[in-house]
Amino acid sequence: MAQPSFFAGLDVGGTSMKGGVVDDQGKSLGSVSLPTEAYRGQELGLARMVETIRAAVAAAKLTMADIATVGVATPGTMDLAAGVVLDPPNLKPWQNVPVRQYVHDALQMPTAFQNDANAAAFGEYWAGAGRGANSMVLFTLGTGVGGGIVIGDKVLVGEHSHGAELGHVRIEITNPRQCGCGRMGCLEAYASATAVVKRTLEALAANPGQSSLHQLLNRDEEITARAIFNAAAAGDALAGKIVEDTAYYLAIAAVNMMHTIDPNMVVFAGGMIAAGQPFLERIRWHVKQMAFPIPAAATKICYAQLGNDAGFIGAAGCGRLLWKNG
Amino acid sequence: MAQPSFFAGLDVGGTSMKGGVVDDQGKSLGSVSLPTEAYRGQELGLARMVETIRAAVAAAKLTMADIATVGVATPGTMDLAAGVVLDPPNLKPWQNVPVRQYVHDALQMPTAFQNDANAAAFGEYWAGAGRGANSMVLFTLGTGVGGGIVIGDKVLVGEHSHGAELGHVRIEITNPRQCGCGRMGCLEAYASATAVVKRTLEALAANPGQSSLHQLLNRDEEITARAIFNAAAAGDALAGKIVEDTAYYLAIAAVNMMHTIDPNMVVFAGGMIAAGQPFLERIRWHVKQMAFPIPAAATKICYAQLGNDAGFIGAAGCGRLLWKNG
Repeated sequence: MAQPSFFAGLDVGGTSMKGGVVDDQGKSLGSVSLPTEAYRGQELGLARMVETIRAAVAAAKLTMADIATVGVATPGTMDLAAGVVLDPPNLKPWQNVPVRQYVHDALQMPTAFQNDANAAAFGEYWAGAGRGANSMVLFTLGTGVGGGIVIGDKVLVGEHSHGAELGHVRIEITNPRQCGCGRMGCLEAYASATAVVKRTLEALAANPGQSSLHQLLNRDEEITARAIFNAAAAGDALAGKIVEDTAYYLAIAAVNMMHTIDPNMVVFAGGMIAAGQPFLERIRWHVKQMAFPIPAAATKICYAQLGNDAGFIGAAGCGRLLWKNG
Repeated sequence: MAQPSFFAGLDVGGTSMKGGVVDDQGKSLGSVSLPTEAYRGQELGLARMVETIRAAVAAAKLTMADIATVGVATPGTMDLAAGVVLDPPNLKPWQNVPVRQYVHDALQMPTAFQNDANAAAFGEYWAGAGRGANSMVLFTLGTGVGGGIVIGDKVLVGEHSHGAELGHVRIEITNPRQCGCGRMGCLEAYASATAVVKRTLEALAANPGQSSLHQLLNRDEEITARAIFNAAAAGDALAGKIVEDTAYYLAIAAVNMMHTIDPNMVVFAGGMIAAGQPFLERIRWHVKQMAFPIPAAATKICYAQLGNDAGFIGAAGCGRLLWKNG
């Protein structure tokens, strides 16, 4: 019988969970998504994790005997060393869920457990934008701002599972915005998709009638980050200012990491990178203005490449390390 | 003949260089200091490095045969992988100085090369405040703010020798102070000893006659960070506000590292820690307000213990790793 040489990964989100199988280079053989339905309780959630992994293996036309390891990524406060999700805001009412142990026992397979943003960072590092880099910092821009740091094939998880909580690095003292976490001046309060919308609504209220976005408001349409980036691309001045400020905030975040971790690459991921190349070029421009000359010249500033496959690919990659490192 | 089992370290500063010998636990057997005299050129500087190391070995009543490795730490922009100081602002007119190669060739011994703040961090980690920790972040508070990050016995040097340039992490957008480096809003522009004096002089100019520090100014005495901390301890309100704000800025810096590196300890070093326990308690108080609950409860916030021996001890420790890791 052949050695098992594929790796299963699972990325658990607030709405759905995505499982997939990858090969030894991190190439996806396909994936399946099932609803998380956290409100139905953690017993069902755990069973669904195993179900999703099994479905992903079947979808890849493999059997569990072909799989060497499993990796599971979840959001929320966690104890990574213990393999437990503690009190995840996006998975209520789950509490102290022993994810790693449960999945391990159900599948009888070496099982890795990781924070979702860390897993996405590892996925991009291994098989996406970061291929070939020794170190990489990732920012995921969605409802919040997540972060992941990988140095020399190792995810920086920290001593208390709070490594790379990069949305909650403070960038403002004098006039700080309040973050969803309750703290003041966090990056997330400036540069998440939610923050972009909030800053736009404030600007629209302060500048009545000056923007094409007022027409959306008048038609009772939702102002989304996408609508704002589109308006900016079409020449709307108010939207353009919001987008430019966002690029500036993200450049500050990137430079702060260049002066702390000094990685080969800083990668941006998440829905907001649909804004495309012009937005990336503005981030790069601000980085060049603000970073020390050597990292400014040498550090690559890029978009992620794996979309929302990064989580399960990275989770699978973390499992693979258990196998590779014995 | 016995195995050589001592380690020599050298910490090169703008004014003087300090060499010393340590044992396998990082305990100092004594040290010597000689003037750097950078203005006399890098040839003399390199020769003086070797002279200082030899003098330190002699002062420890050892011979070079007792020494297993050497480590040298310097300030300035550098290429750590190449072992070269590039363009050090505090060692003018030195340019592209091949420190590691020169010392290695002169002493015929495995030679490590490190940034001075990184070396101080490694010294505290190995033999000072950080003993027993797995990871540690150090801030040195002097003319500038230096930084060092150690994770699992490894100094985080980064890909372009810019790891842990923590004085140049930006903490303010709206109304940023200009840093000595030319950038805006750097931590160093708020929390170095120089910045504390500058902020105090501004406050004194804005509040004529309200502070005991005005008497120093009137007597043409220099306002030093020490005088400011003393005035605060004696109840001076203006000085007290400066000290409290400084503790707050340093707490922001600590929390930003707790949400990035998530170390076991954050350690403050440099002349400013002469301010003593009350200042440390204020930093700790602000950290508890601002950090996520788990790292807030678990991360130790401490002062350094090795004074200005940390640099040569850490440099020696970096050399010892060459020997220990083969």
